[in-house]
Formats: sequence, structure tokens, C-alpha cells
Amino acid sequence: MQFSTTDTRIGWIGTGVMGQWMCRHLMDHGFQATVTNRTKAKAQPLMDLGAEWKETPEEVAAASDVIFTIVGFPKDVEEVYLGESGILKGARPGAVVVDMTTTSPSLAQTIYKEAASKDVRAVDAPVSGGDVGARNAALSIMVGGDKDTVKALTPLFEIMGKQLVHQGPAGSGQHTKMCNQIVIAGTMIGMCESLLYGEKAGLDLEVMLSSITGGAAACWSLDNLAPRILKGEFDTGFFVEHFVKDMGIALEEARRMNLALPGLALVNQLYQAVMAHGGSRMGTQALMRALKQLNNAI
Amino acid sequence: MQFSTTDTRIGWIGTGVMGQWMCRHLMDHGFQATVTNRTKAKAQPLMDLGAEWKETPEEVAAASDVIFTIVGFPKDVEEVYLGESGILKGARPGAVVVDMTTTSPSLAQTIYKEAASKDVRAVDAPVSGGDVGARNAALSIMVGGDKDTVKALTPLFEIMGKQLVHQGPAGSGQHTKMCNQIVIAGTMIGMCESLLYGEKAGLDLEVMLSSITGGAAACWSLDNLAPRILKGEFDTGFFVEHFVKDMGIALEEARRMNLALPGLALVNQLYQAVMAHGGSRMGTQALMRALKQLNNAI
Repeated sequence: MQFSTTDTRIGWIGTGVMGQWMCRHLMDHGFQATVTNRTKAKAQPLMDLGAEWKETPEEVAAASDVIFTIVGFPKDVEEVYLGESGILKGARPGAVVVDMTTTSPSLAQTIYKEAASKDVRAVDAPVSGGDVGARNAALSIMVGGDKDTVKALTPLFEIMGKQLVHQGPAGSGQHTKMCNQIVIAGTMIGMCESLLYGEKAGLDLEVMLSSITGGAAACWSLDNLAPRILKGEFDTGFFVEHFVKDMGIALEEARRMNLALPGLALVNQLYQAVMAHGGSRMGTQALMRALKQLNNAI
Repeated sequence: MQFSTTDTRIGWIGTGVMGQWMCRHLMDHGFQATVTNRTKAKAQPLMDLGAEWKETPEEVAAASDVIFTIVGFPKDVEEVYLGESGILKGARPGAVVVDMTTTSPSLAQTIYKEAASKDVRAVDAPVSGGDVGARNAALSIMVGGDKDTVKALTPLFEIMGKQLVHQGPAGSGQHTKMCNQIVIAGTMIGMCESLLYGEKAGLDLEVMLSSITGGAAACWSLDNLAPRILKGEFDTGFFVEHFVKDMGIALEEARRMNLALPGLALVNQLYQAVMAHGGSRMGTQALMRALKQLNNAI
């Protein structure tokens, strides 16, 4: 199995803030694309570059050799793959499907099995790096699936990302992304409680940060999100509702595996409070606001 | 106020794994030192280099212009400063005392006030960087106290550390160190739960880490302690009992300030479990063992 710009037609489902850049990089490298999206207007830039529009995932799949998806929530993934007009209705035998949404490892395994029964190969390949990583083709791509399929997809992944790691069988990409999010849950609560403590103790938080960011407390969140909190900038960044989705998936998978993760569970609850206060579309640093509310200090 | 190797005699109380190096750096730069320690044998290397031994903190203080302390727990600091044969019994008017132990900000403020009543100036200056940082004079020093005193001490701190930041009035150094430890509590729970999830999900943890250490989950703990966990190396690193001490101080200060820190409280409880299972003198990565016990997977 080998993909080339002359023989391979790609399908792309989900042309949002991430997908439109990722698809565009493939098109820039010469691939012909067929696309669809819930909101057609968001696919217009790609159509302007020559992408063909189809109304349903089924039709996109029927026209493509490799179909990529990056949509919203697990229920969207389920609909796009297994629904009435889903990919698996239209995909031809021998086709490859690649879900790059962060979604449930169990769902990835279900899709893998359903696809296999139709001689379609499925790979899960969630990413980290956000919209900046998507735009700059600098994503980290965590891949689960059969070795041969992953190998064949490698040149395509390399167009979209900087770091590509095959993590194991179907679902392993998603599990790895969950590991990523679980660490972040920890760094977020640590960072926010530290800032809250420092503020309450009367420290100059910028000066405080200058003492701690270079040592054993060093973390990406402290470097990148603490400055936003200090500026009162809560509207930018990775949406709370997406992080809550991810933590929910991790906790549900942990439940299936009979695994208690008390830290993750607590952070998830505090983010539920951020949601309850209308913070769904704020950046994850809005956890600070829930902690302040909790302490009646807003 | 200015200190020089010709006019200034330093005192050093606490010649353990950190203190013996810090004192030695000052001696290497030409300062005459008077020392004491609970276990005399540990001060022998400094005496071999010319340090004078005294039996009590009071006697050390009486012989010194600047007295440094780095001992164990807050009760030790209290004893060393305010006890029967404590520093403040012996310190001469005009002397400067510098506590580099990680201890309670409130205690630092008490010492500051008690010292001031005897015309002695007190500074709190806890450090991060561990024994390696102490040996290589690469510590981060977080300083609380009066501006003039801190300024006068700066040349001495620069002999011991790489990064020196004056954080504010007495207690601010300790508060800053607490901020540091609160972040670490978060990175530790995030890292350990991530590894536990990954292991249970059947991932190859080294491969998993290769996907997540370069992005938004990046943190010192993941880089430095996750590899130890993978090797089953729990006996090295920052002692659990010292981290539990630090978290206890932070939680007690938070209580005084009417501040709820649910994440820190949870991590503290899990480390109490590590202690209950005999892990006091293990490295902080032993949190992984408590989480495994919790999940009955050891």
C-alpha cells in the first residue's frame, strides 16, 4: 500500500480551526481533496483552492482512497463513521480511514472492527499542538492501528505534523492522547492553585514566577498560561468544553478499565464548575476563575 | 551594610546534604565560618577546611556577623532560633540571620519580629535545586526580608546560587517556595496518573512519553521523574517526608489565609498514604506506588 498525489484521492471531513489547515497542507503538496463539513461556509477556503464539496461523509468516502476526519465530540465521530450517511456506508474496500479527532479509545476500536468487516482499514491519530500547530504543520500525531497501514500513511502525516509516533494497535493513539490530557489536568490545577496562593499571600506574581519557572516546577502551563491569567486573558486558548470532553473520555475509559484516578476526577469536577459559570468557550486557564469562585474571591 | 571576607565572620547551622555545600562555597570564597550541627560528624568535612565548631546555635551566633541556617522541619527552625540556646540568645545587635530551610512563612515572620526586637535583621531565603544545585552553586534562592538587608546579602547568595530573587517582605521567600511546591504537587499527580492510565491501557510507556513530553503536557517531573518510575527507581530523589512537610506548611498557611486548595489537599492525602506504606524516605515519584496500591495493582 502506497499513497501518491497522482493515484490517491483524499477525503476530509471536518474543516474547522484544525482540519482546514491540515487538509490544506495535503492539498499544497498536490493531493486532490473531497470535503464536507457541518457548516459549509467553513469549507469554502478549501473549495476555493480546488477541493470538491460533497453533502455527506458517505459521499466523501465513496470518492476517496484515504478519508481523514477531525470533528467535535465522540457522538459526532460516531455519526460520521457509523451513521445513516456515514463513511462506512460509502467507503470502498481497500480504503483507509483516519480519525484525528480526540475521541474515545473504545470508539476507535469499534470503528476499527466495523471498518475491517468491510475491508476498510481504520487508524486513530489524534494530535496535540492546537491551531498553531495545525497551521505550522508542527503537530504531534499519536497513531493507533495496524503497522502496514500506519507505515503507508506516514508520508501524509509528515505533511501535517512534526512528530509522528505509532503507539500500538487501534485505540492506542487515543489512549496516548488521554495520557497527555491527564498530565495537563495536573499541571493546570498545580499552576492555578499556586497563583491563587501567591496572590492571597500578597506576592507579586510575576516576580514569584521568575523564581519558580526554571526549576522542578517548570511546565508548559506555567510558561504559557500563567502569563494569560496575570493579564486577565481568559477568552483565548484551548476551549474548556473540549478539555472537559477529553477528561470525560479518560474517566470513562478508566472506569471501564477499573482504574481510579482521583486527581483527574477532582480537576474534572472543578472544570465542571467553570462550565456551570458559563466558561465553556473560555481557555483552560479559566480554571483559575472556578478556584477564585470557590474561595469567594472574584 | 556591606560584608567582606576580611571583616565578616559567618555562622552556619545545619551541615546536611545541602548546608555542607553551601557553607563550603562561602569558605572557598574566603569567608571564616563557625558551624554547628545536630550530628557533629557531618560537620567534620567543614572543620577539616578550617571551620570552627560550637556546641549550640547561641554560641555560633555570638561568634558571627551573618548566621545562616538550613535545618529540617519548622520545629527545628523554631528551636534553632527561639529555643533555650537559640540564635537570638547569642546574636549581637546588628547581626543578620538567614534561614534557608523551607519552613513556615508565619514562622519566618515571627523570627523577623523577634529578631528586630533585638536589633537583629532576619531574612528568609529557601532554595530549590536540591543537593545537585547546592553542590554546583546553582540554586534558585527566593528571598524575603528588608531591601537593604537583602542587598547586603546578595554577594553571599550569589556564591551559593544562580538565581536570586527578592520576593518581598519577611515570609515572602517562604511563600514563593510554597508556590513552587504547589505546582509540583500538580505535576506529580498528573504525571503518575498518566503513567498509571497508560500502563493499564497497555501502552508502551516509553513510546507514549515520546509523544507527549514535547507539547502542552511538558513538565520537569515528566522529563526527570517518569524515567525513574519506568525503571522502578523509587529510592532516589527528593524525600517524600520533606515534600509532605512542605505541603503541610502550604495547607496550614492556606488555612490561615482562608483559602481552599482542593488539588493540593488531595495530593497531600495521597502522599500520606505513601508515608503510611513506609515510603517516607523514598523519592517523590513514589506517589506512583500509592496510586497503584489504591488500584490494587501492585
